[in-house]
Amino acid sequence: MQEEKKKKLAMVIFSGDMDKLFAAFSIAAGAAASNMDVTMFFTFWGLRGIKANVKTGKSLFGRMLGVMYGGDINRANPSKMSFGGIGRWMFKKMMKAKNVPSLPELRQTAIDLGVKLYGCQMSMEVMEIPREKMIDDVAECVGVAFFIEQAQKADATLFI
Amino acid sequence: MQEEKKKKLAMVIFSGDMDKLFAAFSIAAGAAASNMDVTMFFTFWGLRGIKANVKTGKSLFGRMLGVMYGGDINRANPSKMSFGGIGRWMFKKMMKAKNVPSLPELRQTAIDLGVKLYGCQMSMEVMEIPREKMIDDVAECVGVAFFIEQAQKADATLFI
Amino acid sequence: MQEEKKKKLAMVIFSGDMDKLFAAFSIAAGAAASNMDVTMFFTFWGLRGIKANVKTGKSLFGRMLGVMYGGDINRANPSKMSFGGIGRWMFKKMMKAKNVPSLPELRQTAIDLGVKLYGCQMSMEVMEIPREKMIDDVAECVGVAFFIEQAQKADATLFI
Repeated sequence: MQEEKKKKLAMVIFSGDMDKLFAAFSIAAGAAASNMDVTMFFTFWGLRGIKANVKTGKSLFGRMLGVMYGGDINRANPSKMSFGGIGRWMFKKMMKAKNVPSLPELRQTAIDLGVKLYGCQMSMEVMEIPREKMIDDVAECVGVAFFIEQAQKADATLFI
Repeated sequence: MQEEKKKKLAMVIFSGDMDKLFAAFSIAAGAAASNMDVTMFFTFWGLRGIKANVKTGKSLFGRMLGVMYGGDINRANPSKMSFGGIGRWMFKKMMKAKNVPSLPELRQTAIDLGVKLYGCQMSMEVMEIPREKMIDDVAECVGVAFFIEQAQKADATLFI
Repeated sequence: MQEEKKKKLAMVIFSGDMDKLFAAFSIAAGAAASNMDVTMFFTFWGLRGIKANVKTGKSLFGRMLGVMYGGDINRANPSKMSFGGIGRWMFKKMMKAKNVPSLPELRQTAIDLGVKLYGCQMSMEVMEIPREKMIDDVAECVGVAFFIEQAQKADATLFI
């Protein structure tokens, strides 16, 4: 009964950029802290947000992608001023200097507050990133129909 | 009566990137398949999503833009790893290998399921892409007020 | 009483790109003109949308960021075809040729129509852009919880 009355936020996380993931997890954690029910649907580049730090890819292209866009959430670069990793390092420094939580810490907070993480099955197949290459906190790997269902029930929807 | 009860999704398609258009049409088709009423409002770079494969532009800048950002949905590059067209080719290969529909096929599915496509009049004028340079399936070319009207009635809104 | 019945739009403005800011302020102004209550929450690069044309940054990194991503809304480059400022100049020309309002004019229209602008406190701290470096029209600098509150009450939400 109480569950039904909870306000709901449904998010698509398409981007794997450091700054956008930061915005996404901030909003998710903030919404969960405000007693909202939060669903994050990770697709395409966004899969980095829930990937473990392991190699991926089976086919030639899959392995190439795994090398070029590999690593976990810590490897995410900002969408601007990436400078081959310098931007990432710089933003981490700046955030630490202001006592802002790091991206993995922020994700953990979101998870602890009950935010549910879902992987997009189709992009996982195309990018050759199977379930076992992801962090354990991922609830399930689902199709786009799952997101649609969430969005229909949601009070707010965001594509990031 | 039944029409009024249909859940509604209103989308702004700002991006003309291959991967974002793919996400957009996946969500649109998925929503329409779930019996939602779906409106896609294409603006700026997103116009590529509904453009025909023809030359555009009248003024010097318009023609320059037509050359630099020309072509139809098949010419869309991924937002990352574009590599002057190699990324596009690679993703097409990867998608085909997994039996994922191509971007034009996915758009057709969305159209067949009843998704309505609208062009943003103002960006069409600025970018010098008139109605007759677009695919026939475009329902109408409208102003931002049209999107606002849709968004007000919508159960979910996304900016892609 | 009437106030409560107003439809509501809550936007996160993450991008500081010329074209995305243009889309954001167009939608905001259009919604306000349609009698909607509109909240824009500017975060990260989006802060450019409400910054004054002054130097920012105190620490080494903050000052570097202030130089590399400095200036006000007039300095915003398009998300594509930036070409070190040429794209910006070209789009301004093209928009003027079609009698489309400039980005600062469009923002002013939005403000005049009652759109409320908010700065994201956390990104202001990280990027070292204090309140006094922003335009006077900014209503307040707030945390993400403020946006969540707005989103819960909103009829439409967008992340741009």
